[in-house]
Parts: sequence; structure tokens; C-alpha cells
Amino acid sequence: MSSQDIDGDIVLIGAGTIGLSFAALHLQHQSAVKLKIVDPRPDLEFYVTETLPKYLPDNQKQLARSLTLTSDLASAVQNASIVQEQGPENAHFKKRIWEEIEKHAPKNALFWSSTSGIPASVQNERMMDKSRLLVVHPYNPPHVMPLLELVPSPETSEDLIQQALSFWRRRSREPVVFKKECTGFVANRLAFALLREAIQLVNEGVVTVEEVDTIVQSSMGPRWAVWGPFKSYHAGGGAGGLEGFFKNIGGTVQACWDEGGKVNVGEGWEEKIFKQAQDAYGVVDTQKRDKMTSEVLGAVADAKEVRQQVWK
Amino acid sequence: MSSQDIDGDIVLIGAGTIGLSFAALHLQHQSAVKLKIVDPRPDLEFYVTETLPKYLPDNQKQLARSLTLTSDLASAVQNASIVQEQGPENAHFKKRIWEEIEKHAPKNALFWSSTSGIPASVQNERMMDKSRLLVVHPYNPPHVMPLLELVPSPETSEDLIQQALSFWRRRSREPVVFKKECTGFVANRLAFALLREAIQLVNEGVVTVEEVDTIVQSSMGPRWAVWGPFKSYHAGGGAGGLEGFFKNIGGTVQACWDEGGKVNVGEGWEEKIFKQAQDAYGVVDTQKRDKMTSEVLGAVADAKEVRQQVWK
Repeated sequence: MSSQDIDGDIVLIGAGTIGLSFAALHLQHQSAVKLKIVDPRPDLEFYVTETLPKYLPDNQKQLARSLTLTSDLASAVQNASIVQEQGPENAHFKKRIWEEIEKHAPKNALFWSSTSGIPASVQNERMMDKSRLLVVHPYNPPHVMPLLELVPSPETSEDLIQQALSFWRRRSREPVVFKKECTGFVANRLAFALLREAIQLVNEGVVTVEEVDTIVQSSMGPRWAVWGPFKSYHAGGGAGGLEGFFKNIGGTVQACWDEGGKVNVGEGWEEKIFKQAQDAYGVVDTQKRDKMTSEVLGAVADAKEVRQQVWK
Repeated sequence: MSSQDIDGDIVLIGAGTIGLSFAALHLQHQSAVKLKIVDPRPDLEFYVTETLPKYLPDNQKQLARSLTLTSDLASAVQNASIVQEQGPENAHFKKRIWEEIEKHAPKNALFWSSTSGIPASVQNERMMDKSRLLVVHPYNPPHVMPLLELVPSPETSEDLIQQALSFWRRRSREPVVFKKECTGFVANRLAFALLREAIQLVNEGVVTVEEVDTIVQSSMGPRWAVWGPFKSYHAGGGAGGLEGFFKNIGGTVQACWDEGGKVNVGEGWEEKIFKQAQDAYGVVDTQKRDKMTSEVLGAVADAKEVRQQVWK
């Protein structure tokens, strides 16, 4: 792999939502003939032709026709620079496929799994060279959302992490490298903690599902699009920073923690909350969501640029 | 109070950050002579003249000079339509001040507390007519952030809640009425649950304070600015909605919940995390934050408008 970019193919294993979203991202940055998608589904060509254009901007929809589709893993990876896996979330499947990929791919190809929960240290069990595997977990859909969680196993090579970092930064993504593996990685852990509290408050009858969403959309959503929670509370503490914040209202924070975090999956809140969500939202249009999210990300980027030019 | 808007004065008790931010919001919607600020601090005039213009747009900074400042509560509230309290977070203070305000304000004036934690059912203890008091809790700073949590006590009059709702909607805010009181209200409960998980993950050495912020800013921040958590996960479940989401990955969600929510205030994580925040951010400029947040809110509003015009 050159220091500037890659020479060989990008091979995506699995043509689900994540796979096609990554395909859209790669196609916008990469000569299209270098992108291959491997999936055993019999209607692969029809499915990709139907779905992939939805992820591409209006003036680039023709890109969806110019990639290679195949069910033959062994030959697909032969000239790979990057193999990116988003197959079934099943440890056995992932162990087997990396063993197979390693047999056929070039020695310097990068191996990335999009798993949302099976750590590289589990997936690499049958690999000859365990240092090659890295989790690159996106926030769905990756062609819109900038975050990529890079979660190495203890064996992953530092050099291969750096190559992944450079690759994603050249594509204007936000890769974050974890110091160690953890259950669920970070973004989902954070979001699910808030979701748990939301479920509890709806279940207790304080507010409805839709009111929770209104609350988040008109407070911490836009705030955290700009400054994350630590920087926000560091600001909230005035001159004392985060320490000042906890000095002022640490008691209130702990009181909230003591009350919260009590619901679990399968404890009976499901029927009421699923029904509220269905009644409020029915079938949702994720293309609208993605268009609006892109505009928010654009507004933050513009504001940062103005800040650097004018305010600094 | 007329059905269109108010006839009398808006009286703000307390000239702290929240009080002046509300002043900026009211001044932009209200004849300035009708706004009064009550605060016993001896340097009140100097302080307000110095601080309030920072909260106003460039072409409206002169508004800061045209309001009434006083330390005389009894006469300030005599012609009030709305009395909005943001004094010390101290139950005794609040009980006493509402008792005093009720003696001097007109019978139909609305009484709102900006408290972040002392429920109306505690604050109203010494009031003759307990039905008049409503918590109207902002998300700081209220001249930027649209959310207002309207938290009635069991005694609060339904008619007075409706008047508060109309008032805030005419000012393009997002008021949400709670069905019951709860510890910390909802926005802080949700945000603090996520903060707790963030502290735990930094304390365990998975990522740093700054990396948590990067993660949130490039994933759930912009997403939740557009669609709150329930709508987002309802979409994540495809045709099955929120129920489908939990069917697919309820096990992962529970695994995350089992691992998380373990830190408490004063358990020794503080030094490391406060230092990381201080090293990463030092003194922050909240005017930059507010400008960027306003642009994000504008982008969401624009995108919604486009959606209604074109997509519907």
C-alpha cells in the first residue's frame, strides 16, 4: 500500500445495509473498477442495482453500475489492498471467513471487520497472523456518519492501525482508535445508556416516546453535534471547568444516577413503548433522515471553518 | 392575560446566566420597557450592561439598555403578567420568595421557576394558591436552546399550563409538559446517564475525554439533532420498527447495560477525568458554542422546511 492511497482492490464482504453504504462511500473516493462486493445471495446484481443508487448523490448514481459483484471469495480477494467484512454477526462465521481470506489475499492487505460486537481477539482465532485484523466499526450509515471506531485486539499491529487511520482521514472520516477492547464499543454503550434512561422515564409515565425525542432534538442533540458531553459540561462549570461542574451539581448528578438505570430487556416495558413508537412514527424514511443529518454535519463544518477564519 | 400575548410585565428574579439568557430571549419578542430584572446584587446595573449584550445579536445589542433593573421585589411584580424565578437552588429560598411574590403580584400572573431540580410541589409549600406554580426548566442557555421542560406539581392548574405552552410556542420554543414530577427532570436524566457511561469508559482506559467528545460529535450528536433516540432506533429496526430493533440486537443492548452504569460521584475517577478535560479544553468560549449551535438548529429547521415543501 502506498503512503498516498491504495494500489489494489477494496473488497467488501456482505451486501447488507452497512456493506452498500460503505460501497457508496468508497465509490465516491476510489476508481470504481477497484471495488468488489462478495455475497452469496442469488439476486445480488438485482439487489445492488436497486439499492446502491439510493446511497449516492444525484449526479453520481451511475457509479453504482461500475463495480464488480461476485460470490467467489477466493478470487475476489486476490488483488485486495483492503478486505472489509460485514457478514452475519456470528463468531463462528467470522473466524472461518478470516481463515479463508488470509489464504487468498496479498500479504500486505488490510483486514477490517465492521462487527458491532465481536472483538478482533475472538475473530482472529484461526488466523496465521493475528496482527492483521482490526475492527472498524461504523455508525450507521457510514456514507453519511463520520465516526469509525477502530478497535484493535491486543495482537493488532500498530503499523496497520496507522494505515487504517490515514486511509479514513483522507476520506474526511473521524476514526478513533481504542486503547482496549470493550463490550459494545463506545458509541453504542453511550447511546444505549441514554436509551435505557429514556425507556425507564417513558415506562414510569413521565413523558411519551415522542416527547423524549422532542426533548433530545431540542437540547443535547444539537449541542452535542457541536461540542461533546465532556466539553459541554467543562463549559458548564465556568472557570472551574468539569471539576467546577461537579462541585456545583455533583449531588444532583448522583441523585439522577441513583434513580436511573433500572430497566432491563424483557421486563415488561416493551409492549407499551413499542406501540408508542409505532403509533408515533409508523414507517420512517431514512433517506430524509440522511439528507437532514448531512445538512447538520455541513452546518457544523461551515461554522468551524468560519470560526477558524474569523474568530481565531 | 390576553389570548394573543401578555399585557403586563415580565419580571425575572435573579440575574445569573439563566436569568440574563431569558432576558435576551424576552427582549427579542417583547416591548423592552415591560421587562424587569430583580436582583439584590449591588453592582446589578454594571453587571447587566456588561453581560447581557453578549447574548443579543449584533443588530439588537441596544435592547440591553432598555429594561428595568431593581432590588425591590414587591413593587417589581405589581404589574406582572409573568414572574420567572432563577434564584439560588435552595428550597427554603424558593418557598419564601413565592410566598412573598404571591402577596404583591396580580391574581392572574403566571409563576414559573427555572429550577433544575426543586419540584413545584416543594416550592409551593407556603403559597395560598398552590395551583399557580409551574416549573419551566430551560436547557442552558435558553436564548439559544429551544427546549423548555414544563413540570407541573399535582396542584398546578391545567389552564395555567396551557397559557405557558401558548406563550412559549409563540416564541418558537419547544415546550414539553410532563405528566408527573421526577428527580432531575428528563433532559438532565438522559444526558447524565450518557455522561456516567462516558466517565466509566474513560476511567477504564478505553478512550480519552476528548475521544468521547469526537465520538459523540461524529455520531449520535448530529443524528439526534435530527431524530431523537426512539425514532432513530425505530428506523434501525427496519420494517419491524423499535420492536424489530430489540428483536435483532436486544441481547447486545442488555450486555451493554450489564457492563455499564457502574461509576458514582466521589469514587476516585475525578482527578484523572477533570485533568483530561482541563488539558484538552482549558478555558472555552461559550459564545462560539452558541453561534455554532444556532447554525445547527437553523440547518435542521431549513431541512424540515425543504422536506415539507418538496418531499411531502
